[in-house]
Amino acid sequence: MTTPSTARRATADRFEVTYRMAGPPEEAEARARTIALEQTVELPDPVVVDADIREHVIGRLERLEPVDQGSARATISYEVGTAGADLTQLLNVIFGNSSIQPGLRVEAVALPETLLRRLSGTRFGSAGLRERLAVPDRPLLCTALKPMGLSADALAELAYRFALGGIDIVKDDHGLADQAYAPFEERVGRCVEAVDRANRETGLHAVYAPNVSAPGSATLARARLAASAGAGAALVMPGLVGFGSMLELARNDTVNLPLLMHPAFLGSFVAHPATGVAHDVLFGTFARLAGADATIFPNYGGRFAFSKDECLAIAGAARAPLGDLRPIFPTPGGGMVLSRVPELLALYGNDVMLLIGGDLYRAGPDVTANATRFRDLLVERSARQP
Amino acid sequence: MTTPSTARRATADRFEVTYRMAGPPEEAEARARTIALEQTVELPDPVVVDADIREHVIGRLERLEPVDQGSARATISYEVGTAGADLTQLLNVIFGNSSIQPGLRVEAVALPETLLRRLSGTRFGSAGLRERLAVPDRPLLCTALKPMGLSADALAELAYRFALGGIDIVKDDHGLADQAYAPFEERVGRCVEAVDRANRETGLHAVYAPNVSAPGSATLARARLAASAGAGAALVMPGLVGFGSMLELARNDTVNLPLLMHPAFLGSFVAHPATGVAHDVLFGTFARLAGADATIFPNYGGRFAFSKDECLAIAGAARAPLGDLRPIFPTPGGGMVLSRVPELLALYGNDVMLLIGGDLYRAGPDVTANATRFRDLLVERSARQP
Repeated sequence: MTTPSTARRATADRFEVTYRMAGPPEEAEARARTIALEQTVELPDPVVVDADIREHVIGRLERLEPVDQGSARATISYEVGTAGADLTQLLNVIFGNSSIQPGLRVEAVALPETLLRRLSGTRFGSAGLRERLAVPDRPLLCTALKPMGLSADALAELAYRFALGGIDIVKDDHGLADQAYAPFEERVGRCVEAVDRANRETGLHAVYAPNVSAPGSATLARARLAASAGAGAALVMPGLVGFGSMLELARNDTVNLPLLMHPAFLGSFVAHPATGVAHDVLFGTFARLAGADATIFPNYGGRFAFSKDECLAIAGAARAPLGDLRPIFPTPGGGMVLSRVPELLALYGNDVMLLIGGDLYRAGPDVTANATRFRDLLVERSARQP
Repeated sequence: MTTPSTARRATADRFEVTYRMAGPPEEAEARARTIALEQTVELPDPVVVDADIREHVIGRLERLEPVDQGSARATISYEVGTAGADLTQLLNVIFGNSSIQPGLRVEAVALPETLLRRLSGTRFGSAGLRERLAVPDRPLLCTALKPMGLSADALAELAYRFALGGIDIVKDDHGLADQAYAPFEERVGRCVEAVDRANRETGLHAVYAPNVSAPGSATLARARLAASAGAGAALVMPGLVGFGSMLELARNDTVNLPLLMHPAFLGSFVAHPATGVAHDVLFGTFARLAGADATIFPNYGGRFAFSKDECLAIAGAARAPLGDLRPIFPTPGGGMVLSRVPELLALYGNDVMLLIGGDLYRAGPDVTANATRFRDLLVERSARQP
C-alpha cells in the first residue's frame, strides 16, 4: 500500500473527502479507486475514454494510509464542478452511493473557499444569534415545549413561564408538527404572543423557535409563516426534510431566522463506527454548510450514547474556521440535567447553548422557578470561565 | 420477559412499529417503554400526569419477545394523531430520536387504512406506469445516462440510442444534477427531444426520467420544469431531499409524473444489521408511502452487498398489499449485467424493472445494439415465465 503516484494536493478547484474503509490492507487501493469512480462517473474505469472526464470528473486518490490490519484511510479529491451549485449534489458526491457500501465511513471533508462561498451556509452564526438575543458573552439557555398532546394554549402558557424564568430560546419539542392537538399556525401565534408578553415583563429578549420541518416546500411555507408571526428562530430536522431544505431557509430573506438543527432521523449515520459519517462532519461541517446557527446533539451521559470525545469533536467542528462560514453554537441536549451545568460549562466553555428539556419539568411544579435556577447556575458558573 | 398486561391489538386509530433492540433480555421491557416515551412525549414517565396524554399520546407496548440472548423484539403502537397529516412527522414518530440510539432497528411497520388514505402515497404504481409505457406484461427495461461530465447534447445522443434500442425508461444517472457540464434545463430539453425522436422511428413509448433532486423547493420546481418539457418520469433521491419532498411531487397535479426512487445517501440506514431500518421497510414501505412508482436498489451480487433475501424482501414489500396504495416496481440495479437477466427474471418474475447501466456501455461501442440485446433477452425470457 503506497501513496499513489498521481497524488497531488487539493487545489482551489477541488474538495477532499477522507473515507475509512474496512477490509484487508492489500485491497485498500483498489477499493479507494472504486469509490472515486462510484461517486462520479459510476462506470468501470476502462469504459471512460474521454480524456477530459478522466482528468476532471473522476475522483482522484490523493492519499492512502493503513489504519490497522482491518482498515485503511483514503483521501479522494473531487473537482468542485462535480457538485455544481447544489448542496444536495455536494453531499451526493461525498457519500451518495457509497453510503450503501458496507464498512465505509466519511471521516473528514475539506472544502475550498470557492465552494464554501458558493454555498453561503449559516446566516447568523453564534455572533449573530447573540446579537439577536442581546446576550454578549454567557452561554445561551434553551428548553423545549412538551409534551406532544398539549393544546396550543397550554404550550403557550409553558412558553410564557419559561421565558419569564430567563430561558433565551424556547423551542418546540421536535415532535410538535401540525397535529390536531396544537396546529402549527395556532401554536406559533400563541407562543410568540406568550414569549413577547414575558419579555415585556422581564425586559429580556427571549425568542420562540417553532419546529418548521414539513414535507417538501411546506418547510419553507411554515418558516415564512413563523417569521411573519414574529417567531425569533426556527427548529429544522434535516434528517427528515433534507439538508438542502434547511439551507433554503437560511438563504431566504423572507424567513431571515436563526436555525436550530435537530438530529432526529439522522442517527443511522452515526449509529455504527464503521459506517456513516463522523459525528463532527455530520453535526458540525454539514450543519454549517446547510445553514444551521446552532447544532443540537445528544450529550454524553444522557439518554443517548455519544462519547465525550465525539461531543467535543462536534463542538470543535461547530466553532472551527471554515472559510468565511460563521461559527455556530454547539447545543448539547438529550437528557441533560441541571446538576450537570457546571460540568458542561467547564467542558464546552461559554460559546455553547445548553438545552435542558425534561429536567426543567421534573425539577418541580413551578417551571419558571426551575428555569431561573438554570439561568442562575449558568450565569454564576460562566462568570468563572476564563 | 412477558407480554405486558396492557397489550391490545392495534386499532384503526393506531399504527405499530416493531423494533429490534440489542441488549440483555432482562432490560428489554424497560428499554421498550423508554422508546415509547422518547418517540412521543420525550419526558420521563412520572412527569406526564395528564390522563388523556398518557392514554392517547405515549406509545403503547403491545408485544415483547426475545430474539436471542442479545436482543429482543418490541412492538409499540402509536395513535395516528401523533403523526398528524405529515409524512415527515410519521417518520419522526417511527424513528426520529430513536435512530440515534445504538443497537436499535426498525424491523416492521403496520399502518391502518385511515393513515394510508391520508398520506395517499404512490400516484401511478406498477399498473399506471405500464399503461404510460404501453407495456402490459413484460418486465420493464431501464438504463442510466452517464458519465457525469458529458454535455447535454452528448447525453441526449445516448438517450436517443438507448430509446432506439428499445429501453423503456432512460433515466439520468443519479449524479447528474445542475452542473455546468449539462445544466438541468438544457439537458431535459435535449433528452426529451431525443427520446421523442427515437419513439417516432420505433413506434415505441420510451420515456426520459431526469433527476429532479435539488435543495428544498427547487425539487418541486425542477419536477414541474421536467413535466412541462415533456419528460415521462422523474428520478428522486429521498435520502438527499427528504421523503416528504418525493411525496409532494407524487401529489402535485402539475408534476403528474411517475417517480423512480434512488437510494443514494440512504445507505447508512441499512449499512449495519443492528441499526437503521430494515431493507423492505425503507425501500418498500417508506418508498410507497412517499409516492415512488419504482424503487431502485442495489441487487445482490453487484457492486454492493445486499443479500438475495434482502432484495427479495424489498421486492415483496414493493408489491404486497398496503391499504389502497398501489404496488410499485422493484428495480434491482447497482452493477447488474446482461448475462444475469435470466437469473433476475427467474427470481423477480415479470413485475420488475431491470436497471442495467454500466454493462450497456461496456458490452460494446454500439449502445443501441447493446440495448436491443437487453430487450431481446428480456422479451425472450419473460415469455417463459409462468
